[in-house]
Formats: sequence, C-alpha cells, structure tokens
Amino acid sequence: MNNYKLTIQYDGGRYKGWQRLGAGENTIQGKLEKVITEMIGEQTEIIGCSRTDTGVHALSQIASFKCRRHFSVEEIKTYLNHYLPNDICVTEVKEVDELFHARFHAKSKTYLYKIWNHEEGNPFMRKYSMHIKEKLDLEAIKEAAPVFLGEHDFTSFSNARSKKKSFIREIYEVDIKEEHGCIVIRIRGNGFLYNMVRKMVGALIEVGLSKTEQTSIQKILASKERNMVGVIADANGLYLEKVEY
Amino acid sequence: MNNYKLTIQYDGGRYKGWQRLGAGENTIQGKLEKVITEMIGEQTEIIGCSRTDTGVHALSQIASFKCRRHFSVEEIKTYLNHYLPNDICVTEVKEVDELFHARFHAKSKTYLYKIWNHEEGNPFMRKYSMHIKEKLDLEAIKEAAPVFLGEHDFTSFSNARSKKKSFIREIYEVDIKEEHGCIVIRIRGNGFLYNMVRKMVGALIEVGLSKTEQTSIQKILASKERNMVGVIADANGLYLEKVEY
Repeated sequence: MNNYKLTIQYDGGRYKGWQRLGAGENTIQGKLEKVITEMIGEQTEIIGCSRTDTGVHALSQIASFKCRRHFSVEEIKTYLNHYLPNDICVTEVKEVDELFHARFHAKSKTYLYKIWNHEEGNPFMRKYSMHIKEKLDLEAIKEAAPVFLGEHDFTSFSNARSKKKSFIREIYEVDIKEEHGCIVIRIRGNGFLYNMVRKMVGALIEVGLSKTEQTSIQKILASKERNMVGVIADANGLYLEKVEY
Repeated sequence: MNNYKLTIQYDGGRYKGWQRLGAGENTIQGKLEKVITEMIGEQTEIIGCSRTDTGVHALSQIASFKCRRHFSVEEIKTYLNHYLPNDICVTEVKEVDELFHARFHAKSKTYLYKIWNHEEGNPFMRKYSMHIKEKLDLEAIKEAAPVFLGEHDFTSFSNARSKKKSFIREIYEVDIKEEHGCIVIRIRGNGFLYNMVRKMVGALIEVGLSKTEQTSIQKILASKERNMVGVIADANGLYLEKVEY
C-alpha cells in the first residue's frame, strides 16, 4: 500500500471542525476524503493528527491516507489544491512508510492562540483572534504561564466529552509575546485533551483580567474538577501551528 | 453646526463599496449613515474621502458629518462601534472646523496593494490579497514602477465611468516590498481616478509576468486609451491605507 503524508493549512471559520460527521456536515476531514476518494477511485480514510474543533484554524495540520494505486506527490498536491475550496490548502505531500500514522506517531504539537487586546475591534482580525476589550495584565500572564510546564493531570482543563483513559499530558513550552498588535500564546506539548488549549488560555485570560490570582492555576490543576475554569477562549483565536514526529 | 471627522477601518469583503446606493444595497456609507442618523436624531450626510469600490478594504478611511446637537467624541465612537457590524470599526473621532471637508481637503491618499505570489493559495489571505501563481519578476516590477512618479494624464488608467473633468494626477511615491510572504505595492498620490490603482497594479503585474516590457507603461500612459491595460488587479487585494490633510 502507498501511504501519503499531507501538510494542510485551513481557515476553520466555515467548518464544523476536522472530524467527519454525518452527511451534509461541513468538516475538513469530510471535504478532504471526498476529493481524495474521487481522485484515487477507491475508499480511503484520512487520518488527521489533531481533531481541531469547530472554527479552529490550522497553519500546519498533518494527515495521512493509504491507497493501492501509486500517484506522484506532485499529482496529488495539484489535484487536491485544484478541487479543494480555497479555505483549505495542501502545502506539502510526501510518500511515507506504510507504518506511518499521523496521530499515533506525533511527538509534539504546537498551538498558537491570538488575542486582540484593544478597546476597538479589528475588522481584519475579527475571525482570526479573540477580541478582549479590557486591558490584560501581560506581565501577570507571563508570570503565571510556567505553572503549566511539565507533566500534569489535566482533568480540570478537559471537557466532559473527553473519553481518554489518561488525562496526563506533558507541556514543553508556554511562550507569550506581542506580535502585530496581538497577544500570541504558543503552547507546545506531547498531546492535548479536548478543549484543553482553550481552557488553558481561558485560565491565563482570567489571570490577565485580575479575576483570579496567579496561583489559582495551580489550584485548578490540583482540583481535577472541570468547572473550575470560568473562561473557555473562543475557537477562532486558536491555530494548530506545528506537529513534530 | 458641529462637524466630526471619523477615521474608519473596514473589511470591504461583504460590501458594494463605500458609496451609498439604493435601499437594500450593502455599502459602508449606507451602514454608517443609518447608525449615525439613529444616534443624532437628524438627517445627515457622511462625506467620505475615498469612494472605495466593491470589495476594497480600508485601514484608514476618513469621513465627516455635521449635526446640530453636540456630542462628545467618546460618545460618538462608543455608540458607532457598538451598533456597527464588526467588519467596520471607527478608530478615531475628532471635532473639526465647520469648513473641514473629508474629500476636498485631502492632500494625498496612500493605497496598499497585496499580492500573494506563491503556487499554493493561502487560506488566510484569500480575501485579503490577489493570488498570482506564476512567479512575478519583482526586480522588473521595481524597475518599471518609477515611471508613474510625477504628474501624468491618467486617462488610460481610468475607467469609462470616470466623469472627471481632468485626468491629470500626481503620484508622489510607488514603493514595492515583500512583507509576510506578500508583495506589497504602496502608491501615494494627490488623487486617484476610478479603478486607477487597480489598473496601475495590473500594468505592473503584466511587467512582472514578462507579458509586456517595462517601457510599455510609458506607452500606455502616452496613449490615453482605456483598453491598453490588460489586467485590472482584484479588488480584494486593495486597501486605502492613509489620507493626509
């Protein structure tokens, strides 16, 4: 079997997330599978590294699919970019070992979160960031963020929909900077539970709004209770930035 | 009479341009007039500096309106940003002399044009740039651009819809650079005819595609014929960047 690894960029605004749902539901996986199936003339499953949620964007999502017939990587890329809508773009296609699995073999994922922290909105960022009017205390956020580093049980940053056996994840990096007028929060870890990044950012926003103390994130982690985080950051500020294998 | 100067930013994607049309037509001026009229409780006309076309964006459009009742600039800004859709944003409100006229008193306008010049599209720039797949010869464009500088009769860069008495305009600056993966063309002049910037950029694109020689722009200018420019650059790559008084 031929196995192909795709690097995909998308504006998630029009989609009900990555994962294929029922017929008529607009999802990234669904769109890709439709076009790929038409191309290769056989049924196949696209395995995505990250099941991004409704409205979440990707700068670099990784997916793979297998097929019996052989195609060149240029053929696949050209075909997909021709037939996919222009809010989804395949930036790279590679032939990979038959054993390669886009999800199981991922060593780390990096998510970006963009906050537009100005009194007035920005017409060009309205779909690509969370708008927070009240001035956030950036220094307090930067001081609080390292509490996420290392291995933790993230039950209190998960969602009741999470059916994972283990809630332990390791966070390698939490970086916060200002870029082009946005506050950009970059989080890299070995894996993330459903809603985890948006709840982590939500907890940092609460610190930035001085609604909770910096030490409260420590307490939320320790509590293992899901109702402790008051704010879930908007989906449209979140981007899957990178996957490492 | 009180006279107010507004600085306005908008994503023109959903609009049929700046200028008010008939009822039911979605225009920026129409939206603003509706909200301002509701606020001040009297009929007024919003005078915009530039009648941006369908789909064209503004980083800083200038407009003004008069009214009998006095409002504080904060009141106006807060009210407008509350009731305007989030693809239009008022970034500044100033009280100005009763004689101030947003269009007649403008000394120069600067337009930005963004080109996404990569084989693959960019899902995040698809509404905010023109996508050109063929590699443009940037050096050729840079060499050709200065021909626009100075005072010229721009008849061949205008549109039959232009009913201006004079087609003479002065261009102060044509600057070309690469920014965040885009080719950005910045054009500053004392005024612009209908479609003029998009035709100027179109002529530069033709040079960049080696479809015409660099000297051809000189010939197009001299011809004073409207059918000489083969490419009119897409509306969604164009931004009104700045107006100076």
